[in-house]
Amino acid sequence: MEFSDQFPIWNKLTSAQQKQITDSLISRTVKKGNVIHDGSGDCTGLLFIKSGQLRAYILSDEGREITIYRLFDMDLCLFSASCVMRSIQFEVTIQAEKDTDLWIIPAEIYKQIMEESVSIANYTNEIMASRFSEVMWLMEQIMWKSMDKRVAGFLLEESVIEDTQQMKLTHETIARHLGTHREVVTRMLRYFQSEGAVSLSRGMVEITDKKKLERLGGSD
Amino acid sequence: MEFSDQFPIWNKLTSAQQKQITDSLISRTVKKGNVIHDGSGDCTGLLFIKSGQLRAYILSDEGREITIYRLFDMDLCLFSASCVMRSIQFEVTIQAEKDTDLWIIPAEIYKQIMEESVSIANYTNEIMASRFSEVMWLMEQIMWKSMDKRVAGFLLEESVIEDTQQMKLTHETIARHLGTHREVVTRMLRYFQSEGAVSLSRGMVEITDKKKLERLGGSD
Repeated sequence: MEFSDQFPIWNKLTSAQQKQITDSLISRTVKKGNVIHDGSGDCTGLLFIKSGQLRAYILSDEGREITIYRLFDMDLCLFSASCVMRSIQFEVTIQAEKDTDLWIIPAEIYKQIMEESVSIANYTNEIMASRFSEVMWLMEQIMWKSMDKRVAGFLLEESVIEDTQQMKLTHETIARHLGTHREVVTRMLRYFQSEGAVSLSRGMVEITDKKKLERLGGSD
Repeated sequence: MEFSDQFPIWNKLTSAQQKQITDSLISRTVKKGNVIHDGSGDCTGLLFIKSGQLRAYILSDEGREITIYRLFDMDLCLFSASCVMRSIQFEVTIQAEKDTDLWIIPAEIYKQIMEESVSIANYTNEIMASRFSEVMWLMEQIMWKSMDKRVAGFLLEESVIEDTQQMKLTHETIARHLGTHREVVTRMLRYFQSEGAVSLSRGMVEITDKKKLERLGGSD
């Protein structure tokens, strides 16, 4: 799999820019669970995902987490290279949720090309706008939706991503995605189970009645 | 006051691009309290503030509000022209907090120049990154800070913006900024008053002990 075949605006770059990228590109494999970028202000570079799954999250002083978005095949991760734009004044942590193959474009190379190429600049704009939209969606969820609806929504989303009704998920993991406490998630899941929407077993959540879970999630 | 003297990257535009903007620019005055852009998917255009103050907020189905950021002199408002980028998939409402003079750059003109000019594209990138940073800051506040700290923080911020200790603010207004209920704000303010940090009267909040309010806001 070649970067040049995958990168959406490859043909809009000059051959000099293409060479700059090709010469500096780093290929890397990250094991499930590993942190690729820890948000401590270092500039890891832009991550372009060949295959796998990453999640971006923020962390409180007390170590609580909330997932702000996820990245899949052919997605580009900008915020692991916050030095590319001086106005990016926040820190996210990036972790592999599955074994992930990716390319790293060094930040200084990307930055240099972005300053010359209107195509790269506008491509970057569109990516930032789409992450912004995800964060605004999350903000609306947090502000206006109760936690039971958010847990139901998360289970339904996870079931689509994993393409299964039987998900390997601990209550702790769900809590970390949603920025809440394990006990809260356990209470919600037991309620869903009593309603017949899910079935719980050690480290597993199975959706037994999708329609009912959708109703509990308030998406009807 | 001329747009060309105020717009930060005016000199990086070609004279044809400058002419396009000058010919299409609309000057407008918006009275305090009026809504300029109501987020209903229409494309009002980009707003560049001569003088005044705007706030951007989101709205729940039940009519609850939360302020996501504010804009001051010489700020550019992108999200009143969400049609400029297809990846902007959320809606904000823009309201004048003071009488505001602004210029409107029509969205289609801006979009066209952004597709040609690497300077405009990167300028747009920086603005979006800086709004993104504000929203991420807000997300952290909502997730990890209790409401008493957020009310204290809001009063301190408002006092800087208005350059006074005596602020015309109803409990309802504070609640709308913070996305909570009036009763919650009233309870917090009464607690601050009992601690001697603020003094309350009809439609007014006065900061009587800034250091104490800062401690209550958890910023020590």
